[in-house]
Amino acid sequence: MDGTPRIELGKEAALTARYGAAAVPPAGPWNAIIGHLLSHRSIRGFKPDPLPEGTLETLIAAGQSAATSSNLQTWSVVVVDDPAKRAVLAEVAGGQKHILQCPLFLVFLADTSRNERLGIAAGHPLEGLPFLETFLVAAIDAALAAQNAVVAAEALGLGTVYIGALRNDVVRVAETLGLPPGAVGVFGLCVGYVAQEAEIKPRLAQGAIVHREVYDASGEPAHRAAYDALLGAYSRRNEMSADTWTQRVVSRNGTVKSLRGRDLLKSALRTLGFPLR
Amino acid sequence: MDGTPRIELGKEAALTARYGAAAVPPAGPWNAIIGHLLSHRSIRGFKPDPLPEGTLETLIAAGQSAATSSNLQTWSVVVVDDPAKRAVLAEVAGGQKHILQCPLFLVFLADTSRNERLGIAAGHPLEGLPFLETFLVAAIDAALAAQNAVVAAEALGLGTVYIGALRNDVVRVAETLGLPPGAVGVFGLCVGYVAQEAEIKPRLAQGAIVHREVYDASGEPAHRAAYDALLGAYSRRNEMSADTWTQRVVSRNGTVKSLRGRDLLKSALRTLGFPLR
Repeated sequence: MDGTPRIELGKEAALTARYGAAAVPPAGPWNAIIGHLLSHRSIRGFKPDPLPEGTLETLIAAGQSAATSSNLQTWSVVVVDDPAKRAVLAEVAGGQKHILQCPLFLVFLADTSRNERLGIAAGHPLEGLPFLETFLVAAIDAALAAQNAVVAAEALGLGTVYIGALRNDVVRVAETLGLPPGAVGVFGLCVGYVAQEAEIKPRLAQGAIVHREVYDASGEPAHRAAYDALLGAYSRRNEMSADTWTQRVVSRNGTVKSLRGRDLLKSALRTLGFPLR
Repeated sequence: MDGTPRIELGKEAALTARYGAAAVPPAGPWNAIIGHLLSHRSIRGFKPDPLPEGTLETLIAAGQSAATSSNLQTWSVVVVDDPAKRAVLAEVAGGQKHILQCPLFLVFLADTSRNERLGIAAGHPLEGLPFLETFLVAAIDAALAAQNAVVAAEALGLGTVYIGALRNDVVRVAETLGLPPGAVGVFGLCVGYVAQEAEIKPRLAQGAIVHREVYDASGEPAHRAAYDALLGAYSRRNEMSADTWTQRVVSRNGTVKSLRGRDLLKSALRTLGFPLR
């Protein structure tokens, strides 16, 4: 038994941290793995300490154990150690310094190129590849695998953070990593020992997320008001601001400019060999 | 402490089941949570037994504890109990009977509609929503949350299977669940007690998935040949066929027809309020 989860909250503490005292859901069955999952925080300050030998292989084995659509396995990962490459990726991501600091940096790829090569080798070029569906499957495959790797890393006492900002310029990421057509970095992942702890970030009440039989947004304004207050308090405690959730969403999705280049993702994907039919 | 994982393999057994004896990776750190993740199998035969009270809330709490891009939380879930709705969803999915059998069936939504309503309520309509990037974020958010829910369900002794085939007809799914524009079912998830166990499905060797610094497919033909043999043996043991992986990939992606309607996903998404700019 190597590595231990950093924190494993009990049921009431975990639910209160995640939802605030006023919105604790009536959760039922519970055990240590559930407590582990509830204890997730994204980490943005890492020690430079190297990871134990074989950590990468353990994380990849966890990732490959996730479901993959029709067992197509349309994802890959590039391990980036080279400081020059890390610097390019950090620049693409708007200067996120933890990309330079963390001992393990992974770029998860939506990758249909491997199966394209398979089809060619088998004498059956795959007509189903150029579709949006196939890209979507690949991105979802990568996400399921990555989440398992995150759960595994945290179980080993490590911290993680996803780097979606690699999508600010997927063409530059592809050039940096020598990706073939049909492969694209959908997000990065920093892994390492935690230098700077983070508080569990509260989420919307379950009532805002969960619908029964049909979609029903009637309770949403009340959930949003309560969550604006909850996240505003979190912001004051952690980030020296008083931003509500509403303010944050507007700042991230309010204008085309707020997408930081990702408004061009479709044409970039076509450049990288995803026709998205 | 309620519920216990169904199986928790030791390190060597787990890695051998996942990769075959000839391709066991040099994994390092290990513990019970890693063993739990490695023990995943998709389950397609469920007992009708109801789940303990509060199971849904536990699984959703795990799902909401996953990372979400910029905390935008652009996913939702619809719990479908109504047998008539289940029948429609099973039909969309090509007649998968476990959708009718399982005691808990969830449809995970990529959902930008909630934030659209937020923007309107705040007097700042969100210009960033109509882009492919925003849909992709929502689909990835849904996948990260769902994978945490899967890990949690399995930790409680339950089995699960993703239902990607809901994408065969996302418009019919949206009509059935009364989804607003900007919400789409990206996959379903069956959850329940296992009636029909499954063998762990082997995956490609790590060398086929993991690249160092740059993408390098030079070892791929050898990995593919070994995996064709490994999966062929799995097929003979479990599915009364002798299909290799190559044959399966060709059968799933070889022709446009093999996409079973998902070649029309892009126009269907536009119908559902995702312009995908």
